[in-house]
Amino acid sequence: MEKKRLTYAMIGGAKGAFIGPVHRMAIRLDDLADLKAGSFSRDDAANRAAASDIGIESGRVYSDWRSLIAAEKGRVDFISICTPNDSHYAIAKAAMEAGFDVVCEKPLAMTLAEAEELEAIAKSRGRVLAIPFTYSGFPMVKLARELVSSGELGEICKIVLEYQQGSFRKIDFTKPLDKRNAWKMSPEKSGPSCVVADIGVHGFHLIEYVTGHRVKSVLSDLSSFAPGNTLDDDASILMRLAPKTDGGISPKASMVVSKVATGEENGVRLRVYGDKASLFWNQEAPNYLSVKYPFEAERIYKRNAPYVKEISVSAAVSCRIPAGHHEGFIEGFANIYSEFCAAVRDRKAHDFPGPFDGVRTMRFVEAALKSNLSDNAWMEI
Amino acid sequence: MEKKRLTYAMIGGAKGAFIGPVHRMAIRLDDLADLKAGSFSRDDAANRAAASDIGIESGRVYSDWRSLIAAEKGRVDFISICTPNDSHYAIAKAAMEAGFDVVCEKPLAMTLAEAEELEAIAKSRGRVLAIPFTYSGFPMVKLARELVSSGELGEICKIVLEYQQGSFRKIDFTKPLDKRNAWKMSPEKSGPSCVVADIGVHGFHLIEYVTGHRVKSVLSDLSSFAPGNTLDDDASILMRLAPKTDGGISPKASMVVSKVATGEENGVRLRVYGDKASLFWNQEAPNYLSVKYPFEAERIYKRNAPYVKEISVSAAVSCRIPAGHHEGFIEGFANIYSEFCAAVRDRKAHDFPGPFDGVRTMRFVEAALKSNLSDNAWMEI
Amino acid sequence: MEKKRLTYAMIGGAKGAFIGPVHRMAIRLDDLADLKAGSFSRDDAANRAAASDIGIESGRVYSDWRSLIAAEKGRVDFISICTPNDSHYAIAKAAMEAGFDVVCEKPLAMTLAEAEELEAIAKSRGRVLAIPFTYSGFPMVKLARELVSSGELGEICKIVLEYQQGSFRKIDFTKPLDKRNAWKMSPEKSGPSCVVADIGVHGFHLIEYVTGHRVKSVLSDLSSFAPGNTLDDDASILMRLAPKTDGGISPKASMVVSKVATGEENGVRLRVYGDKASLFWNQEAPNYLSVKYPFEAERIYKRNAPYVKEISVSAAVSCRIPAGHHEGFIEGFANIYSEFCAAVRDRKAHDFPGPFDGVRTMRFVEAALKSNLSDNAWMEI
Amino acid sequence: MEKKRLTYAMIGGAKGAFIGPVHRMAIRLDDLADLKAGSFSRDDAANRAAASDIGIESGRVYSDWRSLIAAEKGRVDFISICTPNDSHYAIAKAAMEAGFDVVCEKPLAMTLAEAEELEAIAKSRGRVLAIPFTYSGFPMVKLARELVSSGELGEICKIVLEYQQGSFRKIDFTKPLDKRNAWKMSPEKSGPSCVVADIGVHGFHLIEYVTGHRVKSVLSDLSSFAPGNTLDDDASILMRLAPKTDGGISPKASMVVSKVATGEENGVRLRVYGDKASLFWNQEAPNYLSVKYPFEAERIYKRNAPYVKEISVSAAVSCRIPAGHHEGFIEGFANIYSEFCAAVRDRKAHDFPGPFDGVRTMRFVEAALKSNLSDNAWMEI
Repeated sequence: MEKKRLTYAMIGGAKGAFIGPVHRMAIRLDDLADLKAGSFSRDDAANRAAASDIGIESGRVYSDWRSLIAAEKGRVDFISICTPNDSHYAIAKAAMEAGFDVVCEKPLAMTLAEAEELEAIAKSRGRVLAIPFTYSGFPMVKLARELVSSGELGEICKIVLEYQQGSFRKIDFTKPLDKRNAWKMSPEKSGPSCVVADIGVHGFHLIEYVTGHRVKSVLSDLSSFAPGNTLDDDASILMRLAPKTDGGISPKASMVVSKVATGEENGVRLRVYGDKASLFWNQEAPNYLSVKYPFEAERIYKRNAPYVKEISVSAAVSCRIPAGHHEGFIEGFANIYSEFCAAVRDRKAHDFPGPFDGVRTMRFVEAALKSNLSDNAWMEI
Repeated sequence: MEKKRLTYAMIGGAKGAFIGPVHRMAIRLDDLADLKAGSFSRDDAANRAAASDIGIESGRVYSDWRSLIAAEKGRVDFISICTPNDSHYAIAKAAMEAGFDVVCEKPLAMTLAEAEELEAIAKSRGRVLAIPFTYSGFPMVKLARELVSSGELGEICKIVLEYQQGSFRKIDFTKPLDKRNAWKMSPEKSGPSCVVADIGVHGFHLIEYVTGHRVKSVLSDLSSFAPGNTLDDDASILMRLAPKTDGGISPKASMVVSKVATGEENGVRLRVYGDKASLFWNQEAPNYLSVKYPFEAERIYKRNAPYVKEISVSAAVSCRIPAGHHEGFIEGFANIYSEFCAAVRDRKAHDFPGPFDGVRTMRFVEAALKSNLSDNAWMEI
Repeated sequence: MEKKRLTYAMIGGAKGAFIGPVHRMAIRLDDLADLKAGSFSRDDAANRAAASDIGIESGRVYSDWRSLIAAEKGRVDFISICTPNDSHYAIAKAAMEAGFDVVCEKPLAMTLAEAEELEAIAKSRGRVLAIPFTYSGFPMVKLARELVSSGELGEICKIVLEYQQGSFRKIDFTKPLDKRNAWKMSPEKSGPSCVVADIGVHGFHLIEYVTGHRVKSVLSDLSSFAPGNTLDDDASILMRLAPKTDGGISPKASMVVSKVATGEENGVRLRVYGDKASLFWNQEAPNYLSVKYPFEAERIYKRNAPYVKEISVSAAVSCRIPAGHHEGFIEGFANIYSEFCAAVRDRKAHDFPGPFDGVRTMRFVEAALKSNLSDNAWMEI
Repeated sequence: MEKKRLTYAMIGGAKGAFIGPVHRMAIRLDDLADLKAGSFSRDDAANRAAASDIGIESGRVYSDWRSLIAAEKGRVDFISICTPNDSHYAIAKAAMEAGFDVVCEKPLAMTLAEAEELEAIAKSRGRVLAIPFTYSGFPMVKLARELVSSGELGEICKIVLEYQQGSFRKIDFTKPLDKRNAWKMSPEKSGPSCVVADIGVHGFHLIEYVTGHRVKSVLSDLSSFAPGNTLDDDASILMRLAPKTDGGISPKASMVVSKVATGEENGVRLRVYGDKASLFWNQEAPNYLSVKYPFEAERIYKRNAPYVKEISVSAAVSCRIPAGHHEGFIEGFANIYSEFCAAVRDRKAHDFPGPFDGVRTMRFVEAALKSNLSDNAWMEI
């Protein structure tokens, strides 16, 4: 077998965490790597429970990340770091020095100096280090980047980026926070910034990723609007970007990021204006990319439509299912399999289409064909 | 370990097929079952290639489904059938008689009689048999069903269902078809109906699933509009449904399904009208469910929002990620992991965010914090 | 002055009526004709009140339409008929025979025979007779027709038309109806059909207007779902259309019209599928026209965009304001003038922007300019 | 007749101008005032042409605004000023001093000092002075204001306002400009600011109108991106607003206004975030207002729906047609009347529905009724 599956270990990501399980699902989706070892929580019970749930051999479950790195050296190909921010640097450093490739949740470190050190280690030791700025993984974002770099938009002059969440409106900061929020709101564990470091960085990365311009300087106005919250939870940030060529346009960007945008869920909206055309992408309708022109009809590009691959191979190959079959399609299927598997285990009724539905739909097909052959008369089912 | 992972075998689903890989991804997403055996194609090379790609032990790759069923008896928990329609009946029958639980692609069989026989076998032998009518697996569809059954819409009187695809506008039926389409257009392999049996059944199932009403009779008008195509590729179908209670309203439904709806991708749009409210769901924006009232503002329900679980536990538990984080979120992550894994293998540059991005985003955070502390002055990055 | 303004009289359209006032506003919008005479209601007080409100000279207010026609002969150019359906035929006939041109609300008559007679009279006497099927007056509908006739969509095969209203869900038919609804629900005053004759005809006209195909035959299934209502309030109608040329495609249409579509307001949605492209127009977002292709990005055409006039002069000239300035723009302006005029009369405060707002916005402009010249520092307002 | 119609004169607004004709249409829509005098252009021919087109008596057409004010004193109720910015102050001053009420296009003056003087004159002399910040005339904007002031959103903390136009992408500034643009780009005629003064003021007014908060200070970053353009054509502006009560929240606003937002038409998008809910209004879909909550489904309020009047009488009375009947409805009607009137004049065929359509739609109704009575069989038309 040519293409041996990779193996990996995870640090962090026990039950109740948000991002660890997403990493695991994402890896399984393409079946590229097997999770073989882990240190999922400093809490021993939670650690064991997660390992058992995932099906990790008990000898490869570790009570702390240092023992994992020591013991798994040479045994797994890479390590996925899904811990709170304050340990990213130490784990990523140790893991790379021990020879592992690394996927590390953002932010890469608590300080810029630490981040630069990790960059240097990755470079000098030849380690692959990924920080999952997720939105750059979306097909229509890749298409957007390609449209910009191909000149379809002309020279870029302005970018407007919103990343609006209302999550802090569901939290009472004057009371003790639950585990998932507690570390995010602690400067010691998560760093001196909340909204900028947590979601502003996604906006920043998206701007640079799509436009290819580098941000030169920023002007910011941060707020803490949620009662009882002490870190920044809302920010208006202006940016000036470097031209791509000497004498080229220096674009400007306006960014709004917030955790107190009441009622918003995950409103990532990107608008890029060039002198020939502009584009709009909205994470909450991620399969569409709108491009507007001064003298032509607006165009709506769609994930995995036949023309996508002609514009951007990377956008096309990052699609797993046909156009129009929404990404949720796989999840819809997974839900049916999940109910089916429950029934396989407990032999009870669950919520999935079964033989009754198979038969009824056949009755429907037969009746429809018969009606059509009978001058469109009504047929009983 | 309490919850042993299930195992399964797949019949059909070699490279180039659409639905087989979707089944596999769906199962991996929740990591509920391992694929251990398969007969992926009657073409030996294609069969071996798929098996190797997936990582099936060579001793458990079979050249035909009969040998698979014979050899795997008692070794895997269930069989997933992803072959063309004409073999569904025989395989499902043999599999269930050999003791396997079964997931069988729709349509369950070529004729109603065969489907009824399979239903009877499943019942008499106690086999779990699922036919993946995918849309019933979507969280907002489950929520829709719950809203109807809870009486939020009042008594249902009318249903409008569109399932519009333009796929046949991309095919030249006067020339030999590619493999994926050839069997779908052959009455021998796929049955006497194309559009009704292939996608009309999804619409039919969705109507019954969401409303809880049973269709009593249908009136249909079928067409073959695509030049060179001989099967039905477009249908207008009227339906009359049974009341839920004696004296209750007998709803009517109007359904349009098409494969020649040029430019449409997978336009499944469902409207259900009750005497108190109506609902609208559109598969191409599947995370939203609209409910309209005579005297109140329209309400937009969203996948995994906090109120969903109060209305429908089944809708809530079928969500894997937070509200607003679009289902594509997992795919975005998967794309980053896929590029990362490629880099782990070949040590070359790939399209994923790396240490450079980790550092730059840290520079951004630091500059944003500094600007805010300096009377909102510009800060270099 | 070359272009003398036309004059007209109105029959029907007193206070509380829906469509009469719309006729008057529509005529005033372009200032093409002056309303000089009227018989607005059979109720004398209502008739006088309307006339006074509109500013009709008292000598030209008539208690019945017959005296109006007799007395206004040769004095006004045309008559606008906004009465209940049962008088359309008699008034239109008398008016045309007396030499008037006529605008008559739909349906043109109570029976087909009467309508044919009116058509013959108009023809033989050279009268201009218009029946305002409103949707054919929308710019994007005119553009749609032009795109079809120019061949952009190729040969048409399928049309899907919805006209969904929920108005009957706001009415209790078991109690006496208010005046506006009473006549619509009376077979004597309004004819043997409600939903088909009242809004179905708009759908029918829209299909023929946009596609240029003539409907050959229909199959219908009508219902009366609203409790207490005896006329049709919901209809599913299939249609077969004639080809445009010998050997051309005979398109099919599926139409759903309803007054019990709970929560819908005026959901006119038209989809036309050709073999090269399809189009979609939605009356509730009337400034946009979507065209979808098999191998190209969807295009969104917009009212009064520069490219519109190159495709359809009639679509372009039917626009009164620039692209993006929504049709409601004029109404927004009218609301401000309406409040202003009230203040001119009563010298009291009303809801319109006044000098305070004029000053504040100037302060804003000055502060914005000053901040920009001061390294983007904050400036007080 | 109790309610005598008002009369007015217009200064500016000859053929080819944008806003003058809009003023006239807006006034005619509600038939509240008659245009009796004018000085439409300094160009004599253009002035005469406009007057003739509108139907102004020749003795009341003036070659300059000074003579109009002198001659019309006491004859018309108010004056509408639709000239370039540099004459607003002088005309408005003279008009108010001569005893007229005034509607003056924005900006009210070239400098803040002038604007303050006009405010003082209006106050001291008791003149009604309106500056049409149009968007405050939209029903859903009025509803938004009411929802904020009623406390539905809780305390406001953040406002995001975009006003994006791409109009400058259609202009070549290196060549002589056409008349409509020439004065807008001349600092002498239009003032020291372009984008801020022309459309930024709308955004500013909308923020204060809807939230009821007063802007205290602004920070701005202006650009001139269009090649050859020397005035500001793009702006990012941050704002700090005063609390409504002592100790209340001081909201912040982020505003982006642009004339180089390629492909945008008139993208006015307002988002207001309170601690209980947030709202979103988009001028390009002006009949809808979205309100989002942390723990409830999003609500979509619609123009003239039955619940609107219970929330905001001013929003309800500013609607002219029923919910769902789009504002464009009147324009659709007007287009049909316009074609009809052309036919009345020239007796030729024009694009409006006539007797043929009246007859065909009757045929359709009869066939639909007959099919329904014949077991849903096909009926010829």
